Amino acid sequence: MTSSIGPDELELVDRWWRAANYLSVGQIYLRSNPLLREPLKAEHTKSRLLGHWGTTPGLNFVYAHLNRVIRRDSAEMLFVAGPGHGGPAVVANAWLEGTYSEIYGHVGNDADGMAELFRQFSYPGGIPSHAAPETPGSISEGGELGYSLAHAYGSVLDNPQLVTAVVIGDGEAETGPLAASWHSHNFLDPAADGAVLPILHLNGYKIANPTILARMPEEQLEQLLRGYGHEPYFVTVKDPENTEQAHRDFAEVLDRCLADIRTIQDSRRTPQPGTEDLDGAPRWPMIVLRSPKGWTGPRVVDGLQVEGTWRSHQVPLAEVRTDAGHLKQLEEWLQSYRPEELFDGDGRLRPDVAGAAPAGPLRMSATPHANGGLLRKALKLPAYRDHAVEVPEPGTDRVSPMITLGSWMRDVISLNMETFRLFGPDETASNRLQDVYEVTDKVWQYRIDDGDEHLARSGRVMEVLSEHLCQGWLEGYLLTGRHGVFSCYEAFIHIVDSMFNQHAKWLKVHRQLSWRQPVPSLNYLLSSHVWQQDHNGFSHQDPGFIDHAVNKKAEVIRVYLPADANTLLCVMAHCLASTDYVNIVVSGKQPSPTWLGPADAANHCRRGLGIWDFAGSEVPGEEPDVVMACAGDVPTVETVAAAELLREGAPGLKVRVVNVVDLMRLQDVSEHPHGLPARDFDGIFTADKPIIFAYHGYPALIHRLAYRRSNQDGLHVRGYKEEGTTTTPFDMAMLNGIDRFQLAIDAIDRVPGLAERHSSLRQSLQDRRMRAREHTRTHGEDPEEIRNWQLG
Amino acid sequence: MTSSIGPDELELVDRWWRAANYLSVGQIYLRSNPLLREPLKAEHTKSRLLGHWGTTPGLNFVYAHLNRVIRRDSAEMLFVAGPGHGGPAVVANAWLEGTYSEIYGHVGNDADGMAELFRQFSYPGGIPSHAAPETPGSISEGGELGYSLAHAYGSVLDNPQLVTAVVIGDGEAETGPLAASWHSHNFLDPAADGAVLPILHLNGYKIANPTILARMPEEQLEQLLRGYGHEPYFVTVKDPENTEQAHRDFAEVLDRCLADIRTIQDSRRTPQPGTEDLDGAPRWPMIVLRSPKGWTGPRVVDGLQVEGTWRSHQVPLAEVRTDAGHLKQLEEWLQSYRPEELFDGDGRLRPDVAGAAPAGPLRMSATPHANGGLLRKALKLPAYRDHAVEVPEPGTDRVSPMITLGSWMRDVISLNMETFRLFGPDETASNRLQDVYEVTDKVWQYRIDDGDEHLARSGRVMEVLSEHLCQGWLEGYLLTGRHGVFSCYEAFIHIVDSMFNQHAKWLKVHRQLSWRQPVPSLNYLLSSHVWQQDHNGFSHQDPGFIDHAVNKKAEVIRVYLPADANTLLCVMAHCLASTDYVNIVVSGKQPSPTWLGPADAANHCRRGLGIWDFAGSEVPGEEPDVVMACAGDVPTVETVAAAELLREGAPGLKVRVVNVVDLMRLQDVSEHPHGLPARDFDGIFTADKPIIFAYHGYPALIHRLAYRRSNQDGLHVRGYKEEGTTTTPFDMAMLNGIDRFQLAIDAIDRVPGLAERHSSLRQSLQDRRMRAREHTRTHGEDPEEIRNWQLG
Repeated sequence: MTSSIGPDELELVDRWWRAANYLSVGQIYLRSNPLLREPLKAEHTKSRLLGHWGTTPGLNFVYAHLNRVIRRDSAEMLFVAGPGHGGPAVVANAWLEGTYSEIYGHVGNDADGMAELFRQFSYPGGIPSHAAPETPGSISEGGELGYSLAHAYGSVLDNPQLVTAVVIGDGEAETGPLAASWHSHNFLDPAADGAVLPILHLNGYKIANPTILARMPEEQLEQLLRGYGHEPYFVTVKDPENTEQAHRDFAEVLDRCLADIRTIQDSRRTPQPGTEDLDGAPRWPMIVLRSPKGWTGPRVVDGLQVEGTWRSHQVPLAEVRTDAGHLKQLEEWLQSYRPEELFDGDGRLRPDVAGAAPAGPLRMSATPHANGGLLRKALKLPAYRDHAVEVPEPGTDRVSPMITLGSWMRDVISLNMETFRLFGPDETASNRLQDVYEVTDKVWQYRIDDGDEHLARSGRVMEVLSEHLCQGWLEGYLLTGRHGVFSCYEAFIHIVDSMFNQHAKWLKVHRQLSWRQPVPSLNYLLSSHVWQQDHNGFSHQDPGFIDHAVNKKAEVIRVYLPADANTLLCVMAHCLASTDYVNIVVSGKQPSPTWLGPADAANHCRRGLGIWDFAGSEVPGEEPDVVMACAGDVPTVETVAAAELLREGAPGLKVRVVNVVDLMRLQDVSEHPHGLPARDFDGIFTADKPIIFAYHGYPALIHRLAYRRSNQDGLHVRGYKEEGTTTTPFDMAMLNGIDRFQLAIDAIDRVPGLAERHSSLRQSLQDRRMRAREHTRTHGEDPEEIRNWQLG
Repeated sequence: MTSSIGPDELELVDRWWRAANYLSVGQIYLRSNPLLREPLKAEHTKSRLLGHWGTTPGLNFVYAHLNRVIRRDSAEMLFVAGPGHGGPAVVANAWLEGTYSEIYGHVGNDADGMAELFRQFSYPGGIPSHAAPETPGSISEGGELGYSLAHAYGSVLDNPQLVTAVVIGDGEAETGPLAASWHSHNFLDPAADGAVLPILHLNGYKIANPTILARMPEEQLEQLLRGYGHEPYFVTVKDPENTEQAHRDFAEVLDRCLADIRTIQDSRRTPQPGTEDLDGAPRWPMIVLRSPKGWTGPRVVDGLQVEGTWRSHQVPLAEVRTDAGHLKQLEEWLQSYRPEELFDGDGRLRPDVAGAAPAGPLRMSATPHANGGLLRKALKLPAYRDHAVEVPEPGTDRVSPMITLGSWMRDVISLNMETFRLFGPDETASNRLQDVYEVTDKVWQYRIDDGDEHLARSGRVMEVLSEHLCQGWLEGYLLTGRHGVFSCYEAFIHIVDSMFNQHAKWLKVHRQLSWRQPVPSLNYLLSSHVWQQDHNGFSHQDPGFIDHAVNKKAEVIRVYLPADANTLLCVMAHCLASTDYVNIVVSGKQPSPTWLGPADAANHCRRGLGIWDFAGSEVPGEEPDVVMACAGDVPTVETVAAAELLREGAPGLKVRVVNVVDLMRLQDVSEHPHGLPARDFDGIFTADKPIIFAYHGYPALIHRLAYRRSNQDGLHVRGYKEEGTTTTPFDMAMLNGIDRFQLAIDAIDRVPGLAERHSSLRQSLQDRRMRAREHTRTHGEDPEEIRNWQLG
């Protein structure tokens, strides 16, 4: 390849790189004397040296080169920094581009600002050591590793003009989620989506070890990347001193990759006759950059090799405060970037260097794609009433909530063809949302065979058997301002517990930053839940994602357990219109009783919980004897049936039935924005009557949420207690003690005097329970009167 | 390749395959008439048709072929079934081998037993639809996907004679953990470990979609597998009818693979001069089996293609009870296996077919490797006293608990060179366990460079930047009877939440099966925890794994929060000697005060919690005014310091300090085996005095565990509340309100009358708190008197 890139251009790239490196080292080491106007002394350095140098020069190198092509092409690019702890690099570049000072006025673009930039890094009250919400231009937290490539793909969906350059660390590349992410291009439509340019950065080492991808034979690595479907271009820095060569090599390869991307896109966007869709999957380019870890840093420290080894991972010179030799080496290191050529006497970037930055929103630190709320368009939501089911009598008709929702989701998709997607691990139809296929398809670029259904080159549904990819793509899609739902089997959403953590933490910080605009909420739709185990079994039973989620900041977390089809519709309409939350919605997919007509459901959901008079046996104006509460579809059926058993068997007993849709209503208003004030809580649950609470998940959560409620001692919770296998729905309920008979017995046992007064009722409920169990075991299915139970 | 395999041998394999397929279909459909002695009627079939046919014939095919080579070579092999819901296959083969009837007497090896085998499958009170603890020969739960290959690698470590054949589903292969697992061979020592034979089973479809690996061009797939470092052999079933050809092709490839394995092993076990370790990483063979999904099942049902498509995923003929055509098709399908050639009139396997099974423990369903407790040898544990630190005065010396533990772990490794391994994501040294490198290395097969430290072809430490791999390898290692520790950053252990779920569920069921022998516990050692964020930040802060874990069965879960070096030693010695638990141990790595000398620490850990007289200010024989309780190393320091502040500032105030090591002591004995009886609890925590509890993690957990304790209303818990960034240790404590000043103020505010009596003390504590905060923000480090605080 002969170069068409002039030496001046590369000199500019080099200056930018040096400036970014200088600022990175400064962040790690300096608390004053930022421009080295006086000889460096120990007291100019920080008392605690924190940060990660190793990955930083590589990130700066790539960033500098991307700026060249952005300026040249007026290209829209987004930068995702995968390697952990690359904070100094992304912050340095944002400062060089001016964005940092625009956003954070106290960190100006002069010497004082530079000093503050240095001081705040990894400092109490300052900024973290990795890319974070505070970092302009970032959509990907750099603390936990493995998600950069999935985030990158999420960002370019429905953004045909965008190229996201993602630097993947070779440590990060060992993680499972990253390894799976390489296949993402099979779900990218070259015609309507943008492109991802993966830059695998092999600097050879993790914290303390070499990396797999850096040490396998290069021929094998090339096979691997081709096997992932990529065309890899290698840039290898053989001589770390010869940066000119490195710049030239990288610049040429970058130009080539961008040309390849355009070729692929052109061929799909304006296909020549006869060339449409020959084999489906284009071979996208990618770059492998082999450069020394800690490149341009100290080569040898105390006689040990540092540059090019894991020893440069964090702080290469650890004793600058106490070791004059280290201090001297630091000064030489900083001076090696020739800061006087880069910054003027006031510490401002010299105009020729500053000119290397793209303009305005084309700066990767300022792109609106990284502050997706700026680009967010509200979803057009179809009318809830058009999809709600009529409910002539509560508890008589049976409807699959998920099928009902599917018809509404179909219309959501129709109305928002470029801003909404549905993500799921091969379970959209299994979770009964198949109506969406009336208007869209599952996107797929590899071969499509004759018998395939709903598979196409473009589509609104993204299915891959990886919860990690679903989550990662969706996060990237949301943070760039679009909308989506992740539909998943309830038990297996735990696969992304840690990704959820990072997103919830991201949202917490994001909400505190005035310059970050609200982004669409992350919506989990969990189905095939713990109580429906006909086909699955013990391994598929875990309702604990809610428990996991509520440890995060209350202002971010919302949990909904709709009881039937209409309440599910209401809740999802609410969630899809919201921003900056994580919404968790759990719903069964099997036909189940409908309770509330369209208007009642809307009212009930607005309140979040309520008394169901039709199910109870209260006397107006009197306190009930017992409260039967429920949250979740199956617990609701069992609770209403239990209340009916009591109404029939113990006439005169005043039973109140309470249904909870919005779980966080149970907390106090001081704990959660949705929390119920104490008086309202007592008004519904009473201050001292027994409460039998049938809950969808692990019982402890209800105790936790209702903690310190005046009636907490009266609260008796039934829920999932890790009992079950592949079995019938009612057997699951019985195994865990939330079946109607047990709930009715619980009420009898807890209302004072009732067990004595109604001992024969209690006995007959026990007998009916045992008979139901016996029937199920003998016939392999639940008794007819339970399978087809109707209220009244 | 010309075949050296006789047609008789292949005929035997085919018979076995047909028998296994017959039994698989029977499990899904039949409740009586198991041998089809009479024409099939609707009432012979189950009322609910459940199960997954699609993957089953492929699993049976592989199993039958493996039996041939096991018999021929008297080979020790283990079978891991990766594809989801392969239950009918593994159960069928175990029954054919006689193992099933040996273990489960009520499922005999005759017609009645066969009927029971069929009835119990996916039936209330029966067995699940996937490989599970109940399945003889299984070490890998088939419900959640993605872990089979990692489990397989774990099983062969230190088992040089073992070959584990693992069938990987092409759906499963899309998951992140599986994608990462392909690199596992870099951590396998061909000389001292056994071998894994991966069999990638491309049947083309998941539940409702094609799979990525099946649809990418075959050339690309070959590149991918070579890129993973394998030598792939392809067996493609082009004509499903021509099973003879399929058998011949697969048998030849299998022989070739086993020969390749032997060649690799021989070259490493008895290397020829000059051939030692040429490039380090051998290219292990693997098989790609392309066969139709639902092979040998109904080709077309109701006019739609079923065999070879996703429609065969579950039950291909869904209406046998109501559709005579379906019933007829089912009968023809079952008869197509010619059961009369396979089973005699009593339903027993005919001797010629039965002879295809290996003998005794060589049967894969009976191998002791899959019931690892049979092979378990107790660890030799070094004397705790030899490593314990002397503690002349509590709270004066500072020692890193993890460094202390490291020296003990070094000796654990020395004493158990073939039965113990340490797993971690590149963090063994970062977590301060580096002493282990005095006696062992990190295992690594790719290139080893001159500057690499502690890297070798064999070693007891397995480091890879994938928590999934660490967990998967360790599970495989434990379930085959060996011992290990997974050392991990606390926050990122959430990455394996779902894997933990499956292992905890496995243990619950395993413990209920008398034939399964106890296996070593799964030990998590969590360090670099939430309170030490100098280098990391908000993304690295999550102490919620404990919350997640305690949702699982109490008999399986143990949680320890040792307060210092000696208590950490005691706890780990206890954990490593235990079986059938999941032990979670959380410990800091920074130097921190030592509290208890060797004997006191042992006593304290035996009790699990206790009153620390040296830290409190009680008057013998009198109730304290306030209980200051703590769990975790940092909360302990802050609590003891808070008690000291109160002792100095409010003389006469009777403060009791309670330290909790064994967190489950807080639960009632009815809830957890380690739970404290109510009277003992009240004796320590008092029945009505205020308790200020400083807890390592999310405060809600303490409330949850102490729920219904008589003094629950007096309990005030401080812990992590999702506040923090990259900052100093004391700043972290202050941000979350568990610092000594706040704890002392909490006590003052809660002891009746104290706030009035000691208003100036309260104010001075407030002032000191603000000054500490100010100092930290100004100087970038905590005040000297806090950094080097000593008790007394």
